[in-house]
Amino acid sequence: MHKVQLNPVGWMSQLSQSEMKSVTASHHPERYQLFRRCCLAVLNSGAETDDMHKLMSDNENFQIHLIRKERGVKIELENPPSQAFVDGKLITGVHEHLFSVMRDLLYMEDKYPQGVCQLTTPEKSNSGTQLATGQCTDLVFDMLRHANAISTNEDLNTIVCWGGHSIRPHEYQYTKEVGYQLGLREFNICTGCGPGAMKGPMKGAAIGHAKQRVSNGRYIGITEPSIIAAEPPNAIVNELIIMPDIEKRLEAFVRFAHGIIVFPGGAGTAEELLYILGVLLQAENHQQKIPLVLTGPQESESYFIELDSFIKATLGFKATQLYTIIIDDPKAVGQFFAKQHQDVKQARRNIGDSYGYNWSLQIPSAMQHPFVPSHENMAGLDLHLEQPIGDLAATLRCAFSGIVAGNIKAEAVQDIAQKGPYQLNGEPKLMNLLDKLLQAFVAQGRMKLPGTQYEPCYIIAQTHNE
Amino acid sequence: MHKVQLNPVGWMSQLSQSEMKSVTASHHPERYQLFRRCCLAVLNSGAETDDMHKLMSDNENFQIHLIRKERGVKIELENPPSQAFVDGKLITGVHEHLFSVMRDLLYMEDKYPQGVCQLTTPEKSNSGTQLATGQCTDLVFDMLRHANAISTNEDLNTIVCWGGHSIRPHEYQYTKEVGYQLGLREFNICTGCGPGAMKGPMKGAAIGHAKQRVSNGRYIGITEPSIIAAEPPNAIVNELIIMPDIEKRLEAFVRFAHGIIVFPGGAGTAEELLYILGVLLQAENHQQKIPLVLTGPQESESYFIELDSFIKATLGFKATQLYTIIIDDPKAVGQFFAKQHQDVKQARRNIGDSYGYNWSLQIPSAMQHPFVPSHENMAGLDLHLEQPIGDLAATLRCAFSGIVAGNIKAEAVQDIAQKGPYQLNGEPKLMNLLDKLLQAFVAQGRMKLPGTQYEPCYIIAQTHNE
Amino acid sequence: MHKVQLNPVGWMSQLSQSEMKSVTASHHPERYQLFRRCCLAVLNSGAETDDMHKLMSDNENFQIHLIRKERGVKIELENPPSQAFVDGKLITGVHEHLFSVMRDLLYMEDKYPQGVCQLTTPEKSNSGTQLATGQCTDLVFDMLRHANAISTNEDLNTIVCWGGHSIRPHEYQYTKEVGYQLGLREFNICTGCGPGAMKGPMKGAAIGHAKQRVSNGRYIGITEPSIIAAEPPNAIVNELIIMPDIEKRLEAFVRFAHGIIVFPGGAGTAEELLYILGVLLQAENHQQKIPLVLTGPQESESYFIELDSFIKATLGFKATQLYTIIIDDPKAVGQFFAKQHQDVKQARRNIGDSYGYNWSLQIPSAMQHPFVPSHENMAGLDLHLEQPIGDLAATLRCAFSGIVAGNIKAEAVQDIAQKGPYQLNGEPKLMNLLDKLLQAFVAQGRMKLPGTQYEPCYIIAQTHNE
Amino acid sequence: MHKVQLNPVGWMSQLSQSEMKSVTASHHPERYQLFRRCCLAVLNSGAETDDMHKLMSDNENFQIHLIRKERGVKIELENPPSQAFVDGKLITGVHEHLFSVMRDLLYMEDKYPQGVCQLTTPEKSNSGTQLATGQCTDLVFDMLRHANAISTNEDLNTIVCWGGHSIRPHEYQYTKEVGYQLGLREFNICTGCGPGAMKGPMKGAAIGHAKQRVSNGRYIGITEPSIIAAEPPNAIVNELIIMPDIEKRLEAFVRFAHGIIVFPGGAGTAEELLYILGVLLQAENHQQKIPLVLTGPQESESYFIELDSFIKATLGFKATQLYTIIIDDPKAVGQFFAKQHQDVKQARRNIGDSYGYNWSLQIPSAMQHPFVPSHENMAGLDLHLEQPIGDLAATLRCAFSGIVAGNIKAEAVQDIAQKGPYQLNGEPKLMNLLDKLLQAFVAQGRMKLPGTQYEPCYIIAQTHNE
Repeated sequence: MHKVQLNPVGWMSQLSQSEMKSVTASHHPERYQLFRRCCLAVLNSGAETDDMHKLMSDNENFQIHLIRKERGVKIELENPPSQAFVDGKLITGVHEHLFSVMRDLLYMEDKYPQGVCQLTTPEKSNSGTQLATGQCTDLVFDMLRHANAISTNEDLNTIVCWGGHSIRPHEYQYTKEVGYQLGLREFNICTGCGPGAMKGPMKGAAIGHAKQRVSNGRYIGITEPSIIAAEPPNAIVNELIIMPDIEKRLEAFVRFAHGIIVFPGGAGTAEELLYILGVLLQAENHQQKIPLVLTGPQESESYFIELDSFIKATLGFKATQLYTIIIDDPKAVGQFFAKQHQDVKQARRNIGDSYGYNWSLQIPSAMQHPFVPSHENMAGLDLHLEQPIGDLAATLRCAFSGIVAGNIKAEAVQDIAQKGPYQLNGEPKLMNLLDKLLQAFVAQGRMKLPGTQYEPCYIIAQTHNE
Repeated sequence: MHKVQLNPVGWMSQLSQSEMKSVTASHHPERYQLFRRCCLAVLNSGAETDDMHKLMSDNENFQIHLIRKERGVKIELENPPSQAFVDGKLITGVHEHLFSVMRDLLYMEDKYPQGVCQLTTPEKSNSGTQLATGQCTDLVFDMLRHANAISTNEDLNTIVCWGGHSIRPHEYQYTKEVGYQLGLREFNICTGCGPGAMKGPMKGAAIGHAKQRVSNGRYIGITEPSIIAAEPPNAIVNELIIMPDIEKRLEAFVRFAHGIIVFPGGAGTAEELLYILGVLLQAENHQQKIPLVLTGPQESESYFIELDSFIKATLGFKATQLYTIIIDDPKAVGQFFAKQHQDVKQARRNIGDSYGYNWSLQIPSAMQHPFVPSHENMAGLDLHLEQPIGDLAATLRCAFSGIVAGNIKAEAVQDIAQKGPYQLNGEPKLMNLLDKLLQAFVAQGRMKLPGTQYEPCYIIAQTHNE
Repeated sequence: MHKVQLNPVGWMSQLSQSEMKSVTASHHPERYQLFRRCCLAVLNSGAETDDMHKLMSDNENFQIHLIRKERGVKIELENPPSQAFVDGKLITGVHEHLFSVMRDLLYMEDKYPQGVCQLTTPEKSNSGTQLATGQCTDLVFDMLRHANAISTNEDLNTIVCWGGHSIRPHEYQYTKEVGYQLGLREFNICTGCGPGAMKGPMKGAAIGHAKQRVSNGRYIGITEPSIIAAEPPNAIVNELIIMPDIEKRLEAFVRFAHGIIVFPGGAGTAEELLYILGVLLQAENHQQKIPLVLTGPQESESYFIELDSFIKATLGFKATQLYTIIIDDPKAVGQFFAKQHQDVKQARRNIGDSYGYNWSLQIPSAMQHPFVPSHENMAGLDLHLEQPIGDLAATLRCAFSGIVAGNIKAEAVQDIAQKGPYQLNGEPKLMNLLDKLLQAFVAQGRMKLPGTQYEPCYIIAQTHNE
Repeated sequence: MHKVQLNPVGWMSQLSQSEMKSVTASHHPERYQLFRRCCLAVLNSGAETDDMHKLMSDNENFQIHLIRKERGVKIELENPPSQAFVDGKLITGVHEHLFSVMRDLLYMEDKYPQGVCQLTTPEKSNSGTQLATGQCTDLVFDMLRHANAISTNEDLNTIVCWGGHSIRPHEYQYTKEVGYQLGLREFNICTGCGPGAMKGPMKGAAIGHAKQRVSNGRYIGITEPSIIAAEPPNAIVNELIIMPDIEKRLEAFVRFAHGIIVFPGGAGTAEELLYILGVLLQAENHQQKIPLVLTGPQESESYFIELDSFIKATLGFKATQLYTIIIDDPKAVGQFFAKQHQDVKQARRNIGDSYGYNWSLQIPSAMQHPFVPSHENMAGLDLHLEQPIGDLAATLRCAFSGIVAGNIKAEAVQDIAQKGPYQLNGEPKLMNLLDKLLQAFVAQGRMKLPGTQYEPCYIIAQTHNE
């Protein structure tokens, strides 16, 4: 049996006796499994797989322990996967990622027990006590601050990049080129930290930063426990942050961003785009300035045409005004954000808001509350066009969120294996639009990493309302 | 009316919306007065006075406000004393001290409401809920960690210096020379941050550090709300920490120290010496290694002879073995600590304890609980020799603590003005010893800053037990 | 006409009045052309071409001026190629490279006028005054020190990588993987700073460094004026150093290296390998420890077999003992150097030599003197096997050096265009070996960048000695 | 015999083999004595004596050697004075000072042999080859740049302080208070690095810097070989620079200064004041802005009245317009320079001059050439009032310079012991003025450190021109 002990870094290196006791106390088994799964994902950094089951079964003997020593807490790894080691020594970046996972999981458990109950017991979370709107926003801020991410986000140069983890080679290459153009203009990159469109911009930016002698370039990965295993942080991420759930992760993205890019992607990317549109469409946010670009290579043009028409048909023309589509021109993307930089700054000043965290952005409470993807919840989504745009965006966001879960999140996948695919019901017109978009995603191979046959986790049932 | 607004530094520059609300909410008047008093003391930095009443009456119009702006909390000073300003700009060190005061007062109020209840309502604190022993130690650690003091205390080079705030010029000069010898040997200085023996070692060490090109020398001042006004932080302090009360301040000193020096002083110094002796005399602490030196110039020799005999007569010969007396030899003091350095390190290793905070030192619960100096409590002290040494040291510590309060702490001084001096009762032999020592302090002018006539705040009543 | 003025960085930002005068004085035209050519190469960073003529003719209108301002010297670029600019601003790395070129050219002209006479008047240099052996070594040291490269070379972690600028994609990929394994082990990379095998290891190491959080990774490019245009510094180079000529560049490599890798390459790579073998075969160098690895992917195995037999047949078995061939195993290459690290350190200690510059390595005077590739000099090379191994290695080195010049150096290319290819004469056995090797290089496309038909710049004339 | 070996720091830690050879080669005995004397002065740091003879005779057995090791040059001290050591280890600051002495002496010997010939053979220097005006200015710049002093002098906050090494306690206290006010305003201090008025401002500024959290405060001492022994660098100096002679030291002061203070002093201070007035009175310098303050405590008022009348009577009213006299108001001095700061910056901008070195200031060639104090040269001074003001200032400067030498410089003192005092001849009116001023200096004890009886080194012979 192979064992490795790791010295704590950062916050974990200075715990009080009572904190150590609480950290090393025997947690209930579900929490341990969550923790183990996240650590395994981190140790698996760089592996090109989104098949968590394989990852878990390949590493059945892997265990992780917290050991309380007089001078601090150590992490002990038992039978860790070898790929994170160089000549027997854990790669420093992975070492840091492990302690980032611990930092965030322990901190949220300790400080926000009510905010993270769904981490291990999803079925109860919708009915449990929930955080109020302001509390959510404070929690997201607190998690980012605790990870030391706020103080260095003052230059208004953080571009959040969204896009698929499973994209084609020429699309991946394109994300690198966009990242390179951003790096040349000294922007930092924040993504969901996985492969594909979450890795490419960071790689490109790293080269751009090197050319511009930017030595403190930031490659921020914001993830959440249920997705980290399927999208392990890539090698370049130098700040890893774990948010409690997908909704807080989305809130972190948009409050942290000084600009957002949407690359080609699948259901997850659609979820993200619907989220930011849902937010920006709120009347209270008309003063906000968050430049939003949809971009991809020439070959992906049809993807954006399809997405654009879906949005026009569902959320209306006004929604399409909130973004700019740039096809096959990485340099133009870089220049776009460079030109908007002053306006973003001015908007924050006008509102009197912080540069590091967009407090004044109003996010409807419905978009902050966790949506738990279950057969019941999915079937219950109120999918019809005759409702306020914001509500519609929020509801569609939930639909896509459920599909992402059904595709790659462990528990949802298991659930579907037992009970069959989710059923989505709604107004036929809307259901047709949705069906068309999803089928395009499937056809384009955007639902799963290549090499696997996609088995839809949902059924579009159009018979609703008749 | 003169107003100045200050930008937040450190922890205060990154508050969440809810924290800002809580910080700027209208506190009850007593808390505001405490806060105002502490800030006034800091702004009075460098003034040579321990007369808080004069300080307060000279600055009747001084007010302090927390202003909530969208981008952070600002401090607004109304009619601040001019001496802390250079050409209209607040001295950076004082600016930092102000925010250290805020950082610590707000943090302790927020996190340890039960541990700091006596801050504003002393009469109730003895009966209130109290922290358990481990909790006290954790609180002290937490306060130091929150002030970023722990992580840089790992070199085992922190020497805590105790001694009077009112000492004679040649004694003050001597403390500077000792500080210089410590600085030359790259030790850092930690004191109670006031004038006299709390300032001299820092000034001397600063010169020693400059000669040795130590650019990160630490001059740490640990104080508490009720004493800061009488002993405002001097100019050299570059880390100011406010502990909730005298007992936690004493615990901070001894857990933080890698060596301790006692210079000539009055009742406060005696309190400190009795505290560390009371701790080191505990059987559980026989493995501990905290070098302890009593030192002063030739002319102060009699002071140490007196103190030494008092300790021998009360705590016994064993107690006198715990310290080394060095008369008129600053270099020997420096060399003493340099030689002990390895042993201190080895002792921490043997015990498996941290270098930055002495967790394993056992402090009896009686010495951790706040002693509130009131006429009743002072009269009730169990002053007789036939009790365990540790208990006796603790009781004597309380007696001296009360006298310090009666001399310089605002509320106690007021109390005495109304009800007359404290009465100390006890076994005649002990009372005689005590009387002799205190009269020597008075005769040597160690009870108050010079220029004022000392009016004893206590009466030794020897008629006890007969 | 487009003009850009650049502020000086580094050494150039602090010139005395007399230095400024000398720097900005009108140089004779040849020197200006040299300077202009080097700057154009740097501005061309990243372009994948070794066709200097095209580069020059594409930028006929490019001019460069030094402007003397009261507060320092500025560089003014007239009609610079646009690719080095981002939104009108010169890329910081290229800006630095420009001033590195100036720093080194001006410094060598000023301090070593006799050592660099061949820079502009090659035909005279062989007959000119030459530096003595010790002076060469001092000059090389002085140039490196002036570039601030010595002080940070103390960790014994600099691996010099040699190999072709024109290699196949899978070979390029392989050099990246080796670089990655070196970066993971915290080695720095030093190459000749061009494309191909000079760029790949740096790119790979950059990723490895990022994973290990090495923020001060060094990507050192050492070049010389006559080759920089054909092999412009790639984007990753963060320390660019211009040596006066090829021989001093080679000396810089071997005295600076703590390990050397030879990737597949052409005539230039053969020259480099013969150089280090020629040096290490000297009896005085038997105590030296410079690990030397020849490595490439599986598909390049035949290349190394060929090279290995050439060396065995010419320099003998002993020479082949000086290197280790590793085929298709990047990790093994990394581990090889990691294991040798202690021995390299010990060898320096045994000899009492510096870690940053290998003073004690003996380099025969013949290998330090510039070999000027002319038709006469090439024809005059003493190519036969019956001579001391060291001399043979030196002579062969000259032959390959001439071929490199004939392939890509501007003046030699022009010369050959006028007078026809160089003639190489010698002992038939040796000439056959040489012919075979060179034909293999041609067949493998290692002589020029792809897309161009290779026109040999030499003729093997075997009729020598008959 | 006690020996200590020191590792090189800074420039000396990276010498080439040929430089090491030259550094360690046996110099002729006079140079060795010069070097030994300077090192002894540095090792004597903090001692309060200006009696070099005593210093030398107390340390007859002290020797210093340069030892060439493969990895660098070491300094070996034989029988060094013990006061520079702490527990057997040389104080880091003194260690640095020793290598500053070596750095400057070796560099000037090597690069400017003609400029420093008088270092060891004063009798020849007036007739030797001399540097041209521009060359002097370049040399001064080069020495400062080589000491890394230029790049950090860009903030226009360097105040040069002149004044006596032998001043009264209240004057010394006053210089500290002025330094404190300068430090509070974040000015750096540059002096001649000895005791008295050269130490006080640094000590005061150090406290001011500490209060303002200025961690990179500069305490620059500029001295020269013949004076360093009498005025050894004090403990606070963190940049020590040795200029070749008094004239280059004066030029360094005025080109480096962003403001100048003259404290009470003796002949040396008068020399310095006459120097800057002589320079500023040049017509070419009317655009220059160098704020100049004469200041001292109340008790020294008469000193400045005397100096002021001497200047008015000799150089005229216009000269008195160039300075501001501030009596007994340290804060006003600080505020004066703070207010002028913008004007100084604007003046440099208008002229287009560097912030770090005042190139455009015109210094007459006569003031740049070394004046060698000999009986002949002193007697030959052209002391009469009817000459251009600039010439008169220069001549008077020489007279005072000679008196300083006769007071404390080793060779001049010896000379006078043999040949009797210098004779000063000139116009009676001027000689009376001079006599009156010098007698006031003697009466005020400003010519030598206290405890010694002053024996004048000069005779005022008024019979000139009759």
